[in-house]
Amino acid sequence: MSYLLNVVNKLCKQLPVSFSRSMVNGPQMQFNTKFLFRQLFDHDSCTYTYLLGDLSIKECVIIDPVLEQVERDTKLINELDLKLKYAMNTHMHADHITGTGLLKKTLPGCKSLISKSSGAAADVHVAHNDVIQFGDFRLTVKSTPGHTNGCVTYVCDEENIAFTGDTLLIRGCGRTDFQEGNPATLYESVYKEIFSLPAHYKLFPAHDYKGLPYTTVDEEKKYNPRLTKSKVDFIVLMNNLNLPYPKKIDVAVPANRVCGIQDSF
Amino acid sequence: MSYLLNVVNKLCKQLPVSFSRSMVNGPQMQFNTKFLFRQLFDHDSCTYTYLLGDLSIKECVIIDPVLEQVERDTKLINELDLKLKYAMNTHMHADHITGTGLLKKTLPGCKSLISKSSGAAADVHVAHNDVIQFGDFRLTVKSTPGHTNGCVTYVCDEENIAFTGDTLLIRGCGRTDFQEGNPATLYESVYKEIFSLPAHYKLFPAHDYKGLPYTTVDEEKKYNPRLTKSKVDFIVLMNNLNLPYPKKIDVAVPANRVCGIQDSF
Repeated sequence: MSYLLNVVNKLCKQLPVSFSRSMVNGPQMQFNTKFLFRQLFDHDSCTYTYLLGDLSIKECVIIDPVLEQVERDTKLINELDLKLKYAMNTHMHADHITGTGLLKKTLPGCKSLISKSSGAAADVHVAHNDVIQFGDFRLTVKSTPGHTNGCVTYVCDEENIAFTGDTLLIRGCGRTDFQEGNPATLYESVYKEIFSLPAHYKLFPAHDYKGLPYTTVDEEKKYNPRLTKSKVDFIVLMNNLNLPYPKKIDVAVPANRVCGIQDSF
Repeated sequence: MSYLLNVVNKLCKQLPVSFSRSMVNGPQMQFNTKFLFRQLFDHDSCTYTYLLGDLSIKECVIIDPVLEQVERDTKLINELDLKLKYAMNTHMHADHITGTGLLKKTLPGCKSLISKSSGAAADVHVAHNDVIQFGDFRLTVKSTPGHTNGCVTYVCDEENIAFTGDTLLIRGCGRTDFQEGNPATLYESVYKEIFSLPAHYKLFPAHDYKGLPYTTVDEEKKYNPRLTKSKVDFIVLMNNLNLPYPKKIDVAVPANRVCGIQDSF
């Protein structure tokens, strides 16, 4: 009996945000579970920004915010009556300027966060296996270099989801031909830290250019046209993509090194 | 004891798709729950297309597919090993050509579905309070005219979500100045069929232009700048928007009247 009650309690914690628990609490009582999740999009850079929150204590974090969307994101966070704890990045982006610095001004109290190995300034530097807490939820930092040295994947085991940045994209991966890019390193990162997650974990990338929202570990292991190749073939492929020089890199990287242009670092 | 087992079973049915049930079944056994949900996006028309499925029997439906994205959607449905039951629309769109007709060719066996009052040809015509079933999930049709006469909202009570088409957009609503548009009718539709849903229901529109993914009934009742107005003020506002003539209307509406250009109606 107590085992079953324990199971019920654990299951309740995993229910979708909007699940009506009337079956447990009677038909009159409806309430939301605690996890807030919004996948936001910047049309210009095709960047996904993620707002995650614990609704019970109204605390949230934002992953990979974009400078031009700070007004939108600030408005949403205020409307949802949330307090932003961290404005964090998966890596030092080359294609857009982060919104982190400006968010620190529009939502005072929030701290910038990035991996130490990114080389970027921030209030909080994290490293492999560090845990970032917001409310009752945790993001575990997994070092996944290859696109840049400082790339990380944030894994939320409570929700069975991970934020892969540019390391793994839906049916693709980040390029490895500028900054500290290294295809062998990226390949090893994906296999060691992402493909080793449970098959049903949902993977949310920093970009998508085709209008797809997310993928799963299982899908990418089956259908990723690059990462289903052998390591040798992957390296050959990545070294011969002949991609154009990133449009915004000369503006974005110096700005992102200091947490976005509005920050005072 | 049997009551608690019953609760556990019911809770299991409501778990997120990717929840690991190891706590119930032991650490080795992990499986997904049954509801599949992907919010797809067309950059050109800013249309959201929704893929919903019952993973246990591999049956799915697609809401508001876009012609130019049929190749992407067909590939995804095939990779996920799903059978498409219905290619359905919330209304006869004026801004893009539906993918319905072409999907019938790329995924034989699927049927087109739209409201009878839309005036568009389809294999299945639905009306207010009809129920569309895919696997163990249901979409209840709610007639929500105002943007067009045939606009409907599809409500999935099992998941506490609704697909509002162009009737209600995130912090906005569809225009009412062409086709059969009528602001008074739209206002009444929203209050009668959408704002009357439970406050925590998530609302997924047919479009968003700012990169926001969804909203809730509660948020729109508080923050929708148009629909928080009185009906009279709303009508005045909507009748004075002076929007440009829709770019694609002269191509899209005749094509959508026959289920997209590739269909044989």
